[in-house]
Amino acid sequence: MNESSAVRRKPFRRLLLTGAAGNLGRQLRGALADWADIVHVTDIVAPGDAAVHEETSVVDLADREAVMHMVEGVDAIVHLGGISIDAPFDDLLEANIRGTYNLYEAARKHGVKRIVFASSNHAIGFHPVTEVLDADSAHRPDSLYGVSKCFGESLSRYYYDRFGIETVCLRIGSSFEEPKNPRMLVTYLSYRDFIELVRCSLFTNRVGHVVVYGASDNPVKWWDNTKAGFLGFRPRDSSEQFAERFPVTAPTADRDDPAQRFQGGAFVLGEPLARER
Amino acid sequence: MNESSAVRRKPFRRLLLTGAAGNLGRQLRGALADWADIVHVTDIVAPGDAAVHEETSVVDLADREAVMHMVEGVDAIVHLGGISIDAPFDDLLEANIRGTYNLYEAARKHGVKRIVFASSNHAIGFHPVTEVLDADSAHRPDSLYGVSKCFGESLSRYYYDRFGIETVCLRIGSSFEEPKNPRMLVTYLSYRDFIELVRCSLFTNRVGHVVVYGASDNPVKWWDNTKAGFLGFRPRDSSEQFAERFPVTAPTADRDDPAQRFQGGAFVLGEPLARER
Amino acid sequence: MNESSAVRRKPFRRLLLTGAAGNLGRQLRGALADWADIVHVTDIVAPGDAAVHEETSVVDLADREAVMHMVEGVDAIVHLGGISIDAPFDDLLEANIRGTYNLYEAARKHGVKRIVFASSNHAIGFHPVTEVLDADSAHRPDSLYGVSKCFGESLSRYYYDRFGIETVCLRIGSSFEEPKNPRMLVTYLSYRDFIELVRCSLFTNRVGHVVVYGASDNPVKWWDNTKAGFLGFRPRDSSEQFAERFPVTAPTADRDDPAQRFQGGAFVLGEPLARER
Amino acid sequence: MNESSAVRRKPFRRLLLTGAAGNLGRQLRGALADWADIVHVTDIVAPGDAAVHEETSVVDLADREAVMHMVEGVDAIVHLGGISIDAPFDDLLEANIRGTYNLYEAARKHGVKRIVFASSNHAIGFHPVTEVLDADSAHRPDSLYGVSKCFGESLSRYYYDRFGIETVCLRIGSSFEEPKNPRMLVTYLSYRDFIELVRCSLFTNRVGHVVVYGASDNPVKWWDNTKAGFLGFRPRDSSEQFAERFPVTAPTADRDDPAQRFQGGAFVLGEPLARER
Amino acid sequence: MNESSAVRRKPFRRLLLTGAAGNLGRQLRGALADWADIVHVTDIVAPGDAAVHEETSVVDLADREAVMHMVEGVDAIVHLGGISIDAPFDDLLEANIRGTYNLYEAARKHGVKRIVFASSNHAIGFHPVTEVLDADSAHRPDSLYGVSKCFGESLSRYYYDRFGIETVCLRIGSSFEEPKNPRMLVTYLSYRDFIELVRCSLFTNRVGHVVVYGASDNPVKWWDNTKAGFLGFRPRDSSEQFAERFPVTAPTADRDDPAQRFQGGAFVLGEPLARER
Amino acid sequence: MNESSAVRRKPFRRLLLTGAAGNLGRQLRGALADWADIVHVTDIVAPGDAAVHEETSVVDLADREAVMHMVEGVDAIVHLGGISIDAPFDDLLEANIRGTYNLYEAARKHGVKRIVFASSNHAIGFHPVTEVLDADSAHRPDSLYGVSKCFGESLSRYYYDRFGIETVCLRIGSSFEEPKNPRMLVTYLSYRDFIELVRCSLFTNRVGHVVVYGASDNPVKWWDNTKAGFLGFRPRDSSEQFAERFPVTAPTADRDDPAQRFQGGAFVLGEPLARER
Repeated sequence: MNESSAVRRKPFRRLLLTGAAGNLGRQLRGALADWADIVHVTDIVAPGDAAVHEETSVVDLADREAVMHMVEGVDAIVHLGGISIDAPFDDLLEANIRGTYNLYEAARKHGVKRIVFASSNHAIGFHPVTEVLDADSAHRPDSLYGVSKCFGESLSRYYYDRFGIETVCLRIGSSFEEPKNPRMLVTYLSYRDFIELVRCSLFTNRVGHVVVYGASDNPVKWWDNTKAGFLGFRPRDSSEQFAERFPVTAPTADRDDPAQRFQGGAFVLGEPLARER
Repeated sequence: MNESSAVRRKPFRRLLLTGAAGNLGRQLRGALADWADIVHVTDIVAPGDAAVHEETSVVDLADREAVMHMVEGVDAIVHLGGISIDAPFDDLLEANIRGTYNLYEAARKHGVKRIVFASSNHAIGFHPVTEVLDADSAHRPDSLYGVSKCFGESLSRYYYDRFGIETVCLRIGSSFEEPKNPRMLVTYLSYRDFIELVRCSLFTNRVGHVVVYGASDNPVKWWDNTKAGFLGFRPRDSSEQFAERFPVTAPTADRDDPAQRFQGGAFVLGEPLARER
Repeated sequence: MNESSAVRRKPFRRLLLTGAAGNLGRQLRGALADWADIVHVTDIVAPGDAAVHEETSVVDLADREAVMHMVEGVDAIVHLGGISIDAPFDDLLEANIRGTYNLYEAARKHGVKRIVFASSNHAIGFHPVTEVLDADSAHRPDSLYGVSKCFGESLSRYYYDRFGIETVCLRIGSSFEEPKNPRMLVTYLSYRDFIELVRCSLFTNRVGHVVVYGASDNPVKWWDNTKAGFLGFRPRDSSEQFAERFPVTAPTADRDDPAQRFQGGAFVLGEPLARER
Repeated sequence: MNESSAVRRKPFRRLLLTGAAGNLGRQLRGALADWADIVHVTDIVAPGDAAVHEETSVVDLADREAVMHMVEGVDAIVHLGGISIDAPFDDLLEANIRGTYNLYEAARKHGVKRIVFASSNHAIGFHPVTEVLDADSAHRPDSLYGVSKCFGESLSRYYYDRFGIETVCLRIGSSFEEPKNPRMLVTYLSYRDFIELVRCSLFTNRVGHVVVYGASDNPVKWWDNTKAGFLGFRPRDSSEQFAERFPVTAPTADRDDPAQRFQGGAFVLGEPLARER
Repeated sequence: MNESSAVRRKPFRRLLLTGAAGNLGRQLRGALADWADIVHVTDIVAPGDAAVHEETSVVDLADREAVMHMVEGVDAIVHLGGISIDAPFDDLLEANIRGTYNLYEAARKHGVKRIVFASSNHAIGFHPVTEVLDADSAHRPDSLYGVSKCFGESLSRYYYDRFGIETVCLRIGSSFEEPKNPRMLVTYLSYRDFIELVRCSLFTNRVGHVVVYGASDNPVKWWDNTKAGFLGFRPRDSSEQFAERFPVTAPTADRDDPAQRFQGGAFVLGEPLARER
Repeated sequence: MNESSAVRRKPFRRLLLTGAAGNLGRQLRGALADWADIVHVTDIVAPGDAAVHEETSVVDLADREAVMHMVEGVDAIVHLGGISIDAPFDDLLEANIRGTYNLYEAARKHGVKRIVFASSNHAIGFHPVTEVLDADSAHRPDSLYGVSKCFGESLSRYYYDRFGIETVCLRIGSSFEEPKNPRMLVTYLSYRDFIELVRCSLFTNRVGHVVVYGASDNPVKWWDNTKAGFLGFRPRDSSEQFAERFPVTAPTADRDDPAQRFQGGAFVLGEPLARER
């Protein structure tokens, strides 16, 4: 068996990763090497040099033609692209609303049947911290950013019901090297667990349209993934090892502040931003 | 008591009606005369001559500054504006997404605390006709138009949670002079009931953020408004009087077609439209 | 227009009515004349003389070949046949279990797509009288008869999921000329409302597989048909007019007896019967 | 048939009415004449002259022996007694907590099997006015008075589960001659409907332990009695006729005040009261 | 202490195992030795030689008298007997419908109070693989075999409500030595976990009538046993160790086939079978 | 840094522990040393000598002034005081009803914002052992003691809704050194897990008003704490190690006795007690 045929034994022929230059994109990129013969990595800024199995491109998701071209021949998409913090509405409109529409339209035209969509806990961030949510909990965006993620969830539902394009909506918590503040002890998603979650989302044979929360097996739980049990996601990490960094305190004086009361944390305090021009 | 003081006895000082030139806008416009001293009627096309209590304007909702100006001094808004049929995404993006954002931002800046938002049954049109929905049923948009209405519902939720702006989301069925086809025997909302629904939405002292279905008391019921009972909406009309126009048939051969299977009817068959340029 | 073409304007070409010689079959038979060109009326005993638009047959539902023959060419079936009281299991097995299977198999082979199935409140009769049920309430049969009706509901669900044969399961209360005892003030279904319920079940364009309770608009309500609202069934009668026949009493000494505690009434006291041979 | 035997044909032999001197007690008292041979009417103050079928007494519910004596020989109890407004805790403790315990203990010892208990909407008054409740909604007392009613509901549940004493908990809205303020347009229970509700509660053969809301068929609905449908309560009155007394206004400036936000109205603003000594 | 009295210290005096010659019967048979003094093992074919604590018999479950005799003197029954694959309806009717009835009637007449009933995941096999079920999920049989298991669940519910015979309905997944295909990675129930599940079902002091899913602690979860937590069943095995046998693939081209879409797998493709005569 | 300032680094300045002389109070007392600079330990009987960081007092909770004094200056309260077994109502009224009111009133007046309240499984003990409960399960007290705990839960809900005082209601199972009977294999809460549960209840920054069940990770589960997942309570112990002490038996002859049928065990058999005077 020669090298070429060995390469063809990977499960996917061609995967597309958007947002490849971002924090999570960089984490995931390596793992994709084992999953696909060719990985097309793209971002609005240059995603770095291509590995031997990679193609790279610089694409603005708001550019319909460029997106259409980018999606051609792809088996499945991991869509981390767009803006991942609160931002002026006009920017969110281009990157997260027009951009996500462009991606799904391209997927429809090119016959892509599976998209892993990086939604966010900020789609439900205005639920109080004293409530445990599941996949059926109502949208409660905590910011215009969160609203743009609700849009992506609604849009992808439409493309599933109408065209059979399956989407796993990952309501990602806080995926960093380690938790940076007490809230992240709850929302922490280790890189390893993030990659495992994407793996489950790509390889489960049927996913329909499903919401799954992206958190490691942390002691405090705001989110219950029972209804997404068919994905087989089992986090292996926990924020527990980082707990000591955040000294135990009595309930703080600011516990009535919205940033303490709602799951979205400081996002709920943001105001619609003016666009910097 | 002079005329001026008599006028001041109307409940609202200034109401804003968007989409005033559309079918429902024209129906509602007369009723507003009794509810507010001044009614600002606006549309993207000229809404006709102003009555004595009216001001008129021609405003493109996508024009942020014009919208900001239009909302100044308003007590409450009935937002029927935007596109109300399926349309190319770029058009929906301007009129229904950017336009609704502009309206809510203007409401926030000018301290408006109540908006009646014309959502649509097409926000949930991909639920089957054999299911009865209520206010908590999941979004299942049946078209990009439906997706744009889901956006409006999510956005208004955010403005309620964050800024206390109350919204009644009217998931309007089919509001016409009379039902035009068998599906409308289910979704029919008489003009009189539509006006009553807006009245309840404007005058109930507190509404929070609520979804209510807009249908008359038709024999077949897809939608259950129990959870919006605090609005006090009681339809007085029924499609029953029009039933004879649609000859009774055995279940039709096309009953497995999506347009027969889903609540959205023919909308579920639409495909994303190219923009006519 | 000649007479023949006039006849063809009825909605159904050929309807099958089983159990035509029973109490409800006799009530319904007249109404079917307006709904179908030809009504095949059948029972295990002779159903009386055929009207001009009728065919009659005497068929034992347990006789597979006879049932297969009977169903040929039929558009839809109203299945009232089988045993409608508690009975020895072997009898129920033949009439209600084997018989219903035979009917559905015949429907499958002959392409019938709609069956109105006379289930019974005795499929849920072991729910207490202090509970209000809906279409999703669990099976709680109160007798072997009730078990046989649960079987019919499960079987028809299978034929819907697997072969697309739609069924309306009518959980009929007590359909008689008038209530015969205090329990029937709750469970009463007037003949007129029964016929209307069958009409809705036959003519609604899509019904999927649905459970609906058969009761008139009686003051006391054990059953909530909200989830079957898409059938458009609105009872017009009420047991209220008969209330005076059952003198008002204080709660009776026997109110702890099972026949008073459970919705199935005296059925819950039955014991499996020996077969009379 | 002599007069005495005619009297014996009333459904109950002996009914007990507590709180007979209060507003609702006075309304109900007349109706009881038709329901029982002997009506024992009692209150902490003299309930007025006894009619021919009545016995009267003055009893402090906190007096265990007096209550025990009062309950002897009774078939059923309508318990309107105790304090029905917010009050110092020590007073509520005696009248509503110790008093209700005394009553149930007496019922247990004397074999009484049915109690109609005047609970209150203030047991759930801290639910927002934008929520529709049913019998399973959680306790949210809006005052110490409301807490005392929650106690009565819990206590009566225990006496049902343990001793089989059935209780209908009436969460009475506002039962007056007519609504006195805009809130009462929602909570209004006409005297006629109140009496009908008690009638259903007494005469339904089995009630178990059930919560039912006491409101007329008012346009605005906070409470859904579907789960108590087995009581057969159908209100015949509506606050609609009184609506004109409360001029229609735009949402008021005080709509964010707790008294506007919560179902309990002004009760939610109360503070625990000092006892007047 | 002599040997005889030692034997009497086993928890049960006499257990009945039906289906003892089948795959699961053979697995379980050994474990029963520790649980009962005498184990009656029976099947429609000879179940092999009797161990010292065993009695054996060959009984057709459709033979009422033989079943009646077999059940005499039994403390509890593990009912694995009948047909456990799809089969012609007439065969299922005899073995699974008449047979299960015969067993419960015999249990009733002989005072047996606990039955562990081998139901099947095929009673709910028409639920999609993207849905997570629990004990209250609706019956969705995927085959006539599945319908026969729904019958068993309904019948046993009746015998519980009416006669107090407790049943644990085991909705067994795929209990084999090891998973044979990718679907079984989800539905796998190790023999050890199967035996533990039967143990919990027999020894829990009260079980009422309960549904529990039989699966090991596999990564992918379609079934949630929270509501059966009172049984104390905790699987110790997992299909994870077998995962490598089924090479990871991208979602397959046949993922829209019913056998991929529904939990019942290939069963949902079956058609009612002709009986081989 | 001197010793005094080191002490000040403990999370709480002053904690109050009521019921300190009781079984659980004695277990918890040691742990509190690490959590607060000063721990005020109190009981109706002398709670033993004060440690260096402790203050002690003997207070009858029914003594309003003493309670008011005791609460002064406190940051948070662990309220284990009152009667923890069934008792004459008058005693429960003083200790658990008046006493808990006194405590909450004192907390309100002194600005205490967090109370950990020892409720009990006996607040829900009349649910059957074949049902799994969660935080929203209805009150079903199994005794007057249980009723007094329901009162505490309702009262604390009021103080949260009205005054923002947060409460964690611990529905404690059986917290002893080890299980004493088979029921306790289900309800067992190890001392270590109990302390951990109190720790989570005190230190979680926001808890609102929440119910959490106090049980270790025992094999049999009646209670599901998913909805309290935000507390981060993860039991580390299990009753499994004690299982062997309770010989495995077949379902017992007394399994229909109420003490076997309901979660409250023998409590459900109690009768209201006469007060010993």
